[in-house]
Amino acid sequence: MNKVTVIGLGPMGTALSKALLKSGNHVTIWNRTKEKAEVLVQEGAVLASSVASAIGASTTIIICVANYEIADSLLNTEDVTPVLAGRTLIQLSTGTPQEARNSENWIRNYKAEYLDGAIQAWPSHIGLPDTTILFSGSSNVFQQNEQLLKNIAGNLVYMGESIGSASAQALAVVSYLLGTWFGFAHGAHILESEGLPVDSFGHLIEAIAPLLGAEAKHQGKVIENNKFENPESSLQTSLDSVERLVQQAHEAGINADYPLFAIPIMKQALANGFGNEEVSSIIKILRNNN
Amino acid sequence: MNKVTVIGLGPMGTALSKALLKSGNHVTIWNRTKEKAEVLVQEGAVLASSVASAIGASTTIIICVANYEIADSLLNTEDVTPVLAGRTLIQLSTGTPQEARNSENWIRNYKAEYLDGAIQAWPSHIGLPDTTILFSGSSNVFQQNEQLLKNIAGNLVYMGESIGSASAQALAVVSYLLGTWFGFAHGAHILESEGLPVDSFGHLIEAIAPLLGAEAKHQGKVIENNKFENPESSLQTSLDSVERLVQQAHEAGINADYPLFAIPIMKQALANGFGNEEVSSIIKILRNNN
Repeated sequence: MNKVTVIGLGPMGTALSKALLKSGNHVTIWNRTKEKAEVLVQEGAVLASSVASAIGASTTIIICVANYEIADSLLNTEDVTPVLAGRTLIQLSTGTPQEARNSENWIRNYKAEYLDGAIQAWPSHIGLPDTTILFSGSSNVFQQNEQLLKNIAGNLVYMGESIGSASAQALAVVSYLLGTWFGFAHGAHILESEGLPVDSFGHLIEAIAPLLGAEAKHQGKVIENNKFENPESSLQTSLDSVERLVQQAHEAGINADYPLFAIPIMKQALANGFGNEEVSSIIKILRNNN
Repeated sequence: MNKVTVIGLGPMGTALSKALLKSGNHVTIWNRTKEKAEVLVQEGAVLASSVASAIGASTTIIICVANYEIADSLLNTEDVTPVLAGRTLIQLSTGTPQEARNSENWIRNYKAEYLDGAIQAWPSHIGLPDTTILFSGSSNVFQQNEQLLKNIAGNLVYMGESIGSASAQALAVVSYLLGTWFGFAHGAHILESEGLPVDSFGHLIEAIAPLLGAEAKHQGKVIENNKFENPESSLQTSLDSVERLVQQAHEAGINADYPLFAIPIMKQALANGFGNEEVSSIIKILRNNN
């Protein structure tokens, strides 16, 4: 029976605790408000009276709070730091690579091990075999905790020793998702402006989703190798389509903020002579425009 | 043997002509510059000497040029309009619903039939069984031409009598794709800023592509029914992630234009009380912000 502590009982921390209890671990929990702990205590978790005693109860500590600032305010205190030595802290709060580096630095000062993780799933997916969590940090520490972590997600992806890797990869996925949020919302609004149903749009995107995956793989290679030539659809063609989005918005009298943000960046790429290159050549503008 | 005319021999018009020749049709072609016709003439196409004679040669005319402005400049002339009566014009140039309506209006004045289509594929996919083209306009005219059009794309989707439907649906897809272009480019740049390889990002997106399809279907229903409540991941959570993108960009000294465009719109949605709703509730801001 492993002893593990979970700090933070939002929807995600609660899901993590449940999965760890279900797989037979001794789970100690702590949360700022105690009410969220009740259902877990009924399922066999032990509610600690302080962060320091929660950490003292286990060799592996999982922290999953809203952000690193809150994590630091809980952990980097006079009460807690003396208890850290010899324990492993697994950070599952979402943050930036720099925050992961900062955490690793202060935590190592107290002779504790540190892994940085990024959950790529909703709370309802925790504990399933296909659920992905990205990890970075010491490969020894990852391997020591692999069996325990398999209980919360079947697909653990170890990204390497560089502590910022997991959060960088997770932020890259957020960047992609952000595009789909606005792309879908504006697209749905185009259909509304024509009095057309929106639900068929979701089905259409579902039908092309495998192509989106293939295209992402292709553009990843293009960017990795810096070879943007000979596209099947060029940056110029793509910009023409985006300008048509703006034209439709004006003709229909709907909001054009979303396509308008893209045009100056794409035009700058065009002015740099990338018109007959892959649309991913916009990254060359992002690179040079700090 | 069907007689069909193709006007415009860019990469797409050339692919259309080849597919029509391959399936045994009598194909007349026209292009502003004659050089592009040579290879097709060798394969059996007949090069017309003028737009008017190209149109006079067939009952079905497919036009595929850069945009509707060019299409109109070729077709709506003193030479051509007298030849149109009794023929069917199939517009495969990309444009807006309003442009489709304008075209239908003037073409019907000359007693010709009109279908508006939107190709959802690259030129290399023309003639394949899974290739999709969206059509709108008279259902009779669509049915009369269905067999011929199957030669250029196996998956013909008829969207209804309202002539703007096909281009509205196609622009909605462009809107979604635009999100993936910038989402992928900025995400790749995050990885570059950490010295991490980019090609694994493409593989990661490929792995989650089926989830993207399922999510689009879900959000389509959410928007269609105007029921944004009880999300698994809320607008507030999504905005937190986007703010972390901005934070990473500042920490790494990279361009932040892409995540920054999203924040005012998402904050406006938050100020309107949508924080605990689906991220697609941003459409309610787009709707009200014309």
